[in-house]
Amino acid sequence: MAVQIIAVDLGGTQLRAARYDNDLNLLQRENTLTRADLGPQYAIDRMKSYIEKVMPARRSDVLGIGISSPGPLNPVTGVIIAPPNLPGWHNVPLADLISAEFGLPVYIGNDANVAALAEASKGAAQGCRHVVYITVSTGIGSGIISDGKLVTGRAGLAAELGHIPIIIDDEKVSSVELEAAGPAIARRAKAALEAGVSSLIYDVVQGDLSKIDARAVGAAAAGGDKLALQCLAHAGRMIGMGIVTALLLFNPEVIVIGGGVAKTGDLLFAPMRQAVHDHILDSAFTAGLRIERAELGDDVALVGAAALVATAGGSVDISELDRRF
Amino acid sequence: MAVQIIAVDLGGTQLRAARYDNDLNLLQRENTLTRADLGPQYAIDRMKSYIEKVMPARRSDVLGIGISSPGPLNPVTGVIIAPPNLPGWHNVPLADLISAEFGLPVYIGNDANVAALAEASKGAAQGCRHVVYITVSTGIGSGIISDGKLVTGRAGLAAELGHIPIIIDDEKVSSVELEAAGPAIARRAKAALEAGVSSLIYDVVQGDLSKIDARAVGAAAAGGDKLALQCLAHAGRMIGMGIVTALLLFNPEVIVIGGGVAKTGDLLFAPMRQAVHDHILDSAFTAGLRIERAELGDDVALVGAAALVATAGGSVDISELDRRF
Repeated sequence: MAVQIIAVDLGGTQLRAARYDNDLNLLQRENTLTRADLGPQYAIDRMKSYIEKVMPARRSDVLGIGISSPGPLNPVTGVIIAPPNLPGWHNVPLADLISAEFGLPVYIGNDANVAALAEASKGAAQGCRHVVYITVSTGIGSGIISDGKLVTGRAGLAAELGHIPIIIDDEKVSSVELEAAGPAIARRAKAALEAGVSSLIYDVVQGDLSKIDARAVGAAAAGGDKLALQCLAHAGRMIGMGIVTALLLFNPEVIVIGGGVAKTGDLLFAPMRQAVHDHILDSAFTAGLRIERAELGDDVALVGAAALVATAGGSVDISELDRRF
Repeated sequence: MAVQIIAVDLGGTQLRAARYDNDLNLLQRENTLTRADLGPQYAIDRMKSYIEKVMPARRSDVLGIGISSPGPLNPVTGVIIAPPNLPGWHNVPLADLISAEFGLPVYIGNDANVAALAEASKGAAQGCRHVVYITVSTGIGSGIISDGKLVTGRAGLAAELGHIPIIIDDEKVSSVELEAAGPAIARRAKAALEAGVSSLIYDVVQGDLSKIDARAVGAAAAGGDKLALQCLAHAGRMIGMGIVTALLLFNPEVIVIGGGVAKTGDLLFAPMRQAVHDHILDSAFTAGLRIERAELGDDVALVGAAALVATAGGSVDISELDRRF
């Protein structure tokens, strides 16, 4: 009997459901809109109908349903706590609701943890047992695999690399996310323009400073603009400091970086690698270390949700993925 | 057949060997001096003879030999790399040397990791599956247990909480250890005294500023001295920031703090707890969290070395400790 897996990607904008085979190959995928503005009940009903769409004829072929969701959430209890981009969702027992509907095991994971599992299963970290995945976009999230298992902590809250304190003096405490996520890059550029620094960024946004975002800064930087390059260098350096912390605490074999801001490429990655090189305690931590761009594209959450089922919520060693079926 | 375990504590000053039963109860213990000044061969010969002293009549009763050593070391290969307080030790294959001598499995672990295992087996973190142990003395080390297993990373270098970057600006990068270990506390106090600040610390060291250490600062702080209290508050705050990072990355149920400086007590712990309270992302990370003083005293390394054997180098879940024999 062929085992199949149902994967759901619950995002603030899009809701997707898919069916995978036991090698995590995509068999079917359906997309719709979450319509987060209409509240949780609407999205949950829609999720149920899209799971139905991708359900195989014989439900007994299905190993389980995996759901990638914005955090915070508790993967042990299956409760979505209160994600900032799912307004109205407060302590929703999503795993129980979906499990009751379909009579199948349901595993939920936050999007960054699920993406880490995906990259370790089918992406840039395939075959690795010690993986740190970092996503840089409007926020900075992370997912960590230590000795083949997802690090979730007591209540599934672990692996929040974006929020670790950095830049501390007697007046200020900041975090990697507050210094290096997309909005931080934009904010830094905007402040400089407002202070009268001349920059190509002004032209990119056609003089409308409210339109400055990380993409505009990236475009100006690609054109050699000094301010834009400085903004990316600061962000890269701060992500590099976060990576130093991750190396010291997890001693991984690979760091995988995903998310929209990572598409900026070398202008961000070069200062990031430089910071790692300059500030790591000992070269033993970076010997043989790979720092890679994420390989999986838009389907990363679906692949990861499927991998979540295949590893029983991340509690089964990822090396078992090939052997379980 | 009663299973027994041999434990060795290789320190910069003392060398100890002991025998434990399968419940990690002490049966015999022998102490000597490491005489690190005489180089590795002397210490290794001495270690062999002290292991012989605690060996039971029937060697087949022994499950294995566990060795706690200063790091860096590689627990996978059993090689001591180059510990600062074991001069002359460079890439010493200690596990192989001891194993060849006694024909028994040998596990080595760095002292902080081994202490974490000890506190989780018999100390302040007994029964816990998610544990962060931090030792504050002349350096700051840590050992981390995630979901019942020691976090060691690809090459056993993980869990170096003392070295994570903190206080970062364009000029300065510092670490938890550089801000909060014993020498940092002493340095801060000394600099203030040299700058003319009047303080009880001056009296404690009888005017000899070269004698200022964390203990002297602690004594002055206990007497209500303002400078001494400030020095401890700064150290406590920085350890607290390290704890915030540990909470965000590992979401543990307990933080255990050991080491000589921890004996300072509330004058250090109160600002530490305050920093955790002030700077944690969300109270979910601290809900139900215990922050405890280490419970095991001088024998922590021996108990941990025995636990290292019982968990096959930390690769067996600690919950199996009660069931393995």
